[in-house]
Amino acid sequence: MNILAIIDKKRYKEALSFAELDFAFNGYYHKKIPDYQMSALLMAICLNGLNEQETFDLTEIFIKSGQILDLSKVDGIIVDKHSTGGVGDKTSFIIGPIVAACGLKMAKMSGRGLGLTGGTIDKLESIPGFDVDLTFEEFIKQVNTVGYVNVSQNKQLVPLDKEIYALRDATATAESLELIAVSIMSKKIASGADTILIDVKYGSGALIKTKEDAVHFSNLVKKIGQKYHKKVITVIDSMNIPLGDNIGNSLEIMEAMEILQGKQGYLTDLCFKLSATLISASKNISYDTALHEAKEAVSNGKAYQKFLDFVAHQKGNITKLPLSPIVLEVKSHEDGILKDISAYKIAKLASILGCFRHSKEDQIDPGVGIVLNKHLNDKVHIDDVLCYLYVNDPNIKLTFEDLACFKIERSD
Amino acid sequence: MNILAIIDKKRYKEALSFAELDFAFNGYYHKKIPDYQMSALLMAICLNGLNEQETFDLTEIFIKSGQILDLSKVDGIIVDKHSTGGVGDKTSFIIGPIVAACGLKMAKMSGRGLGLTGGTIDKLESIPGFDVDLTFEEFIKQVNTVGYVNVSQNKQLVPLDKEIYALRDATATAESLELIAVSIMSKKIASGADTILIDVKYGSGALIKTKEDAVHFSNLVKKIGQKYHKKVITVIDSMNIPLGDNIGNSLEIMEAMEILQGKQGYLTDLCFKLSATLISASKNISYDTALHEAKEAVSNGKAYQKFLDFVAHQKGNITKLPLSPIVLEVKSHEDGILKDISAYKIAKLASILGCFRHSKEDQIDPGVGIVLNKHLNDKVHIDDVLCYLYVNDPNIKLTFEDLACFKIERSD
Repeated sequence: MNILAIIDKKRYKEALSFAELDFAFNGYYHKKIPDYQMSALLMAICLNGLNEQETFDLTEIFIKSGQILDLSKVDGIIVDKHSTGGVGDKTSFIIGPIVAACGLKMAKMSGRGLGLTGGTIDKLESIPGFDVDLTFEEFIKQVNTVGYVNVSQNKQLVPLDKEIYALRDATATAESLELIAVSIMSKKIASGADTILIDVKYGSGALIKTKEDAVHFSNLVKKIGQKYHKKVITVIDSMNIPLGDNIGNSLEIMEAMEILQGKQGYLTDLCFKLSATLISASKNISYDTALHEAKEAVSNGKAYQKFLDFVAHQKGNITKLPLSPIVLEVKSHEDGILKDISAYKIAKLASILGCFRHSKEDQIDPGVGIVLNKHLNDKVHIDDVLCYLYVNDPNIKLTFEDLACFKIERSD
Repeated sequence: MNILAIIDKKRYKEALSFAELDFAFNGYYHKKIPDYQMSALLMAICLNGLNEQETFDLTEIFIKSGQILDLSKVDGIIVDKHSTGGVGDKTSFIIGPIVAACGLKMAKMSGRGLGLTGGTIDKLESIPGFDVDLTFEEFIKQVNTVGYVNVSQNKQLVPLDKEIYALRDATATAESLELIAVSIMSKKIASGADTILIDVKYGSGALIKTKEDAVHFSNLVKKIGQKYHKKVITVIDSMNIPLGDNIGNSLEIMEAMEILQGKQGYLTDLCFKLSATLISASKNISYDTALHEAKEAVSNGKAYQKFLDFVAHQKGNITKLPLSPIVLEVKSHEDGILKDISAYKIAKLASILGCFRHSKEDQIDPGVGIVLNKHLNDKVHIDDVLCYLYVNDPNIKLTFEDLACFKIERSD
């Protein structure tokens, strides 16, 4: 078999066989195919797509590159969730405790962030002492006792994805619906959950740009799930504003705690919706009953207690969350109505403050970030604080462009 | 500027500015952009194309990566030719002497072959002693005295092309009309000729697949030529059978000599057509007059003498052309009419015999090759010799598949 012939076929929009995909991707994994050939193939896949059979085949190749987690010792219905993106996304830390309080078992593995994406593991590690590297026995024990566990991605699961993900990231080939589906589903299937919720975000700032693509993607992950006898449910959501008020590692943990203690808003509604979808599908009960259960779990304090148990079991000290003491105010220059908060620009600003990692070796600052002080459609007056910036350098230089995250329209 | 944003733009089929193309391609040349990012960009260009302005800009960037040859000391009209491909293509060695005999100056630089392509320089080097590395003074002197010179590509001309060409070759991104046009035209313009003939081959075995693409390509190279005040003429030709009877390095030199001495056939007709086109355009005379001049130059022996002068000036000993003494016969298994000789399969067979280079370090055997013994539409009987193979290993193992270059149809 010949890698050039395989790249050529995909360039001509022809379907690749299992053997051809295996030759290319496993060849790359075993360093027989150089990165410049794989990146050409990835670009051809991005532009010419994969058909369903190719997507199934590639998922299988990804899964078989590593181990499959054996969760047979977990009592109960094992659920997992994944979001395809979102600035300030702390939904896992809210939904995990809620569904655990409702009797489900959320056994979650997550990655670190790169670029403008915050990583779940980075956020959890902002909690002093929090251990993201449990042994398998500790992992199973915590699922069975607490019902919610979140550790760092096991390196034995889908190691091929790690290699391909890094190359996609470095070659602007991340935005392929099929490659996104393969990446997510291979990891979720290898992680062993029964019911998988995929929160499909679309919008200009997301990997998936349009509603049509989001629907197509949603169907694709469901079909992949069927092949492996997994129940896959999806929620499609347009992501144009940040998810909640806080952006930044420890700040997002703080907001998750506030919501679990009853704070209302757009993000709270979204978390109830996602939790209810997961509970309804797992327990085979109506959505309304499931929604009621989820809301009860918050109002009676059980979900918040699950969160505290979760942190305590993973050795985190929630009373010592870091937060930078230097706070700057971003004020409005005009009167009007707040019509847009650009998730993308907020992410770029958070990146400047030090929330994210630009290369794998970068250190992130857990205590910096942004707290939004105004919501969509709020009335805004001149000199009103739009957001607070928690910074680690009092002399940080921010340009007008860096701060242009808000769109205020005059109300005549 | 950011290479990922540039790749992204081309992935979305947006036009790149001069500055963006320069950032990417010069960045690659200066090793600031890694090969895996350039190969992703090349694949995006292959699939989403370049518009005219981008093609002009990229040609300019290519040319400016090196020197431009100053041919002001050449007396007369300087012509050059290029063929976009062809198995057994020895047209340069026939047209060069013909147009030189008709008073034009052909100052040619060529490359070595890789893959299934024979290189002009490899063919010339099969002549013992032939020097492809003249000094610039020797080069100019030979153009002025003989009228035909052919040296190895000057490394100071368009060095960027060499890098990009090797990467395209290794990533199945060679077949982009715009990238082919940029590669050829940047070298031809930097080489300083006034009139440039491009022999545009199309067909399943060529880089350019369809007649429509050949016409588009032809218009593109003409427009690039206009920008640099060069007269570019094109001849479009479908390439499905080998060009002439001989395939192999010294064998192709031999056939060129036979044609210059009067041998008739398809290739002779093609060379007269190409020569006449070049003479007509350069001298501003009618095609028929030019064709007559070209034929005269062969029949009166002047063109053949030019060939001998050309070889002698570059220190080659034409009496000592190598040829392997081991000859195998490929015979027909059936009666019928010879309906096709697959150029692609002949090239693969020639490759097995050792005519070509698979990697830059490979040695080629100048004395091996194929001589076709039957022509298209010839009657063929069982046991007729279809071709002779000149091999260097009497125990060479060839499969039925290796030899399946001929399509014979029964005449009922």
